[in-house]
Amino acid sequence: MTKPNIDSPIVVVIGGGFGGIAAVQALAKAPVNVVLIDKENHHLFQPLLYQVATSVLPTSNIAFPIRRIFRKQANAYVFNDEVVSIDCAACRITFSNKRSARFDYLILAAGANSSYFGNDQWAPFAPGMKTLDDAMIIRNKILRAFEDAEAETNPTALREHLTFIVVGGGATGVELAGAIKELGVDSISKDYRRFNAKNARVILIEAGDRLLPSMSESSSNAAFKALEKIGVEIRLNQSVTHVDETGVVVNGETIRANTIVWSAGVKASSLGASLGAKLDRNGRVLVEPDCSVMGAQNIFVIGDMASMKCAKTGHAVPGVAPAATQMGQFVAKIIAREVRAGVRNTTISAPNITPNFNATNGAQIPERGKFEYFDKGSMATIGRAKAVAEVAGLKFHGLIAWLAWLFVHLILLVGFNNRILVFMSWAISYITFSKGSRIISGNPPSRVKTPVGSDTGDSLADRRKAVEELLMRM
Amino acid sequence: MTKPNIDSPIVVVIGGGFGGIAAVQALAKAPVNVVLIDKENHHLFQPLLYQVATSVLPTSNIAFPIRRIFRKQANAYVFNDEVVSIDCAACRITFSNKRSARFDYLILAAGANSSYFGNDQWAPFAPGMKTLDDAMIIRNKILRAFEDAEAETNPTALREHLTFIVVGGGATGVELAGAIKELGVDSISKDYRRFNAKNARVILIEAGDRLLPSMSESSSNAAFKALEKIGVEIRLNQSVTHVDETGVVVNGETIRANTIVWSAGVKASSLGASLGAKLDRNGRVLVEPDCSVMGAQNIFVIGDMASMKCAKTGHAVPGVAPAATQMGQFVAKIIAREVRAGVRNTTISAPNITPNFNATNGAQIPERGKFEYFDKGSMATIGRAKAVAEVAGLKFHGLIAWLAWLFVHLILLVGFNNRILVFMSWAISYITFSKGSRIISGNPPSRVKTPVGSDTGDSLADRRKAVEELLMRM
Repeated sequence: MTKPNIDSPIVVVIGGGFGGIAAVQALAKAPVNVVLIDKENHHLFQPLLYQVATSVLPTSNIAFPIRRIFRKQANAYVFNDEVVSIDCAACRITFSNKRSARFDYLILAAGANSSYFGNDQWAPFAPGMKTLDDAMIIRNKILRAFEDAEAETNPTALREHLTFIVVGGGATGVELAGAIKELGVDSISKDYRRFNAKNARVILIEAGDRLLPSMSESSSNAAFKALEKIGVEIRLNQSVTHVDETGVVVNGETIRANTIVWSAGVKASSLGASLGAKLDRNGRVLVEPDCSVMGAQNIFVIGDMASMKCAKTGHAVPGVAPAATQMGQFVAKIIAREVRAGVRNTTISAPNITPNFNATNGAQIPERGKFEYFDKGSMATIGRAKAVAEVAGLKFHGLIAWLAWLFVHLILLVGFNNRILVFMSWAISYITFSKGSRIISGNPPSRVKTPVGSDTGDSLADRRKAVEELLMRM
Repeated sequence: MTKPNIDSPIVVVIGGGFGGIAAVQALAKAPVNVVLIDKENHHLFQPLLYQVATSVLPTSNIAFPIRRIFRKQANAYVFNDEVVSIDCAACRITFSNKRSARFDYLILAAGANSSYFGNDQWAPFAPGMKTLDDAMIIRNKILRAFEDAEAETNPTALREHLTFIVVGGGATGVELAGAIKELGVDSISKDYRRFNAKNARVILIEAGDRLLPSMSESSSNAAFKALEKIGVEIRLNQSVTHVDETGVVVNGETIRANTIVWSAGVKASSLGASLGAKLDRNGRVLVEPDCSVMGAQNIFVIGDMASMKCAKTGHAVPGVAPAATQMGQFVAKIIAREVRAGVRNTTISAPNITPNFNATNGAQIPERGKFEYFDKGSMATIGRAKAVAEVAGLKFHGLIAWLAWLFVHLILLVGFNNRILVFMSWAISYITFSKGSRIISGNPPSRVKTPVGSDTGDSLADRRKAVEELLMRM
């Protein structure tokens, strides 16, 4: 391990998602000091978030301490803090406690949040699916709904406890809807006595005309059929116009439900706005072909925060993990090359050098090239041992796709420790149909709408009724 | 499986801890309907709570859905709800949403909470160690302290981040102090660059004159030596007189610390008070030798809520899991016997029968006997692969005691699923020295006290200093 040199340039990376992690790793041998900043202490394996939300995996199986990943990378420093603004001209970032720090290069990889398309007041009733806390909130809601159903005597209220609405038919929505249905059908139906969890109603609402719009039509159709077969109610071409604590309004129809999950849209981190660069309608930064920000060659934006068209195909680079990873590696190579070429081989330290990076040391800037997205394929899983996958123009459905999905996700999981534990959890979960992580935390029990045995009358009939209500609705 | 009879008496069990679970299981073949009510949806394996607080185990490994445990017990019903009061005369319980339900027998097993001896205002600064949420709060605090230390430049503030105070030298305090020290020494010291986690100061404060007061003096001494050897600072005969967000005052000395954990005392659930029975100074119900409440033969109080002396030895029955389990089994047998004997073979359903249970059907009440606590021994673990144990008068220290501890806890863990996963987690954790569950959740980053590189001066020396501060304090 080479000792970092104090005079080496400082590369600040904001965000420990797939893009940020890939960039820091790709800079391991570059003569720079890399500072990774994330407001969470963990890297999150977002593709499996829905498995936490549905109690298949415990949180620790898909989250990994960021600094553990870089334990052996001598030039990498990890800080668990929140950046609130960026000053491009002064090459400084500001933290939420007002302290600030300088950078020579900046890689902005802060990802995206759920978007409610201007209706942020819906958020408390329809949590998104982006963070570990989101997944725990949704898990609590789903499990609480089943618990409340067990104590409910009013058939109308019971139906509301057992109605689950997923808004958005992309990969997250498809996987979540399938997993919720499966939770009721396979796993926990035997644990409840007073209602049949198999009757849980799962509604998947998609504004477009097909599920998985980023995949092929044949995959969309396969996903539709597989979800329909396990009993998910799919509504295409339908838009949600209102959400509150009682349910949603969709195409003018009111559906009452206690559990609503939002996976309909994302907007990029608001940090992009502080760059002063042009943004697209989802708040993503319109970046140059080299992922840099126009007018600030030492600032790159990657992953879900970047809006870019592939140079060859003209298609937009999708907001998926492989794209973020590839962008992180691409910009890391640019930085390493330029530092080695002497464009910036020392930290900005002489008062007579303007902090704006565009003033170089006089060295020739090497040609940066254009980012090209290499599409390795995409996949989505649907319930137990079914999936759709597209790799290199080939389309798989069913068990083979699911095995591919399992394999790819296992080998991608960060860290030896997690990979074994996740595999064990999955194996046990699939063999026993048991969901080991059905833990409600942090919330007091919510109240059922209609009390069990709430009548306190003293007549024999009344008391019998109370006992019947308490025990016999099986 | 025999179908429960609607006319069978209803046994309500409040609390899904060791006592409540044991009681319900022991009633599996009795001609009664058993209703278990808990405000959490999970049974918690409290003896391993400190391992969650120190990131060794994920939460799901020590918590198990209560209704999963009783999936196959046809006469058991589980409700996830909170009971707020008990009416002994009317044989009714009231829930927090004001609904109420009747019982023929009641087993009160709601456990205990942390006690601050009249200083509840200390609770926010020194969380207790009783629930899964407690453990997650403490885990967040400990991990956050290390994260803040990494970003700290002021030596005084750094020392406060790295000072951990555990108040109370019972088993929980001893195990927690050892595990925190071990966390810094073994596991995560390589993950931080700007301070040495091995220097974390762990202070264990005990008001009495020895650790583990419920064990023998030789075990106390062994625990003292083992903790001292790994670097825990132990203060005996010292009392905490003040706690706030900056630290504690102990014997007149102020110790500044960011992390304080309270394991000094417990008080029984406040539900005991609503019985109108006599309570001891810890809020526990002074029960009859058969665990019943004086004047209400159909109401039993067990586990941490019961205050009772052993009939033979005259010693108080300790507030430990085996005592709760044994009490649960004892009262379940009484109930089964009486129901079979016809004392109460139908639910209270005739208007002319006074609800007070002491009016029987006229049948002879079988002799109930007196509860006898069988002490199977006790043990506490100290850091990695060390423990103290006492079984049948024999005392073990060191590795053998630790292996015994491991074995006992593994076989006691509820559920096949958990047992394997916990063992895997432990094995990986002990082999790799890695703490896989170091996940901070639910909290925004707390702020470090002194900004890194907060000076925005433009001179070369200033900027060099900022970089040095950012990177070189290793």
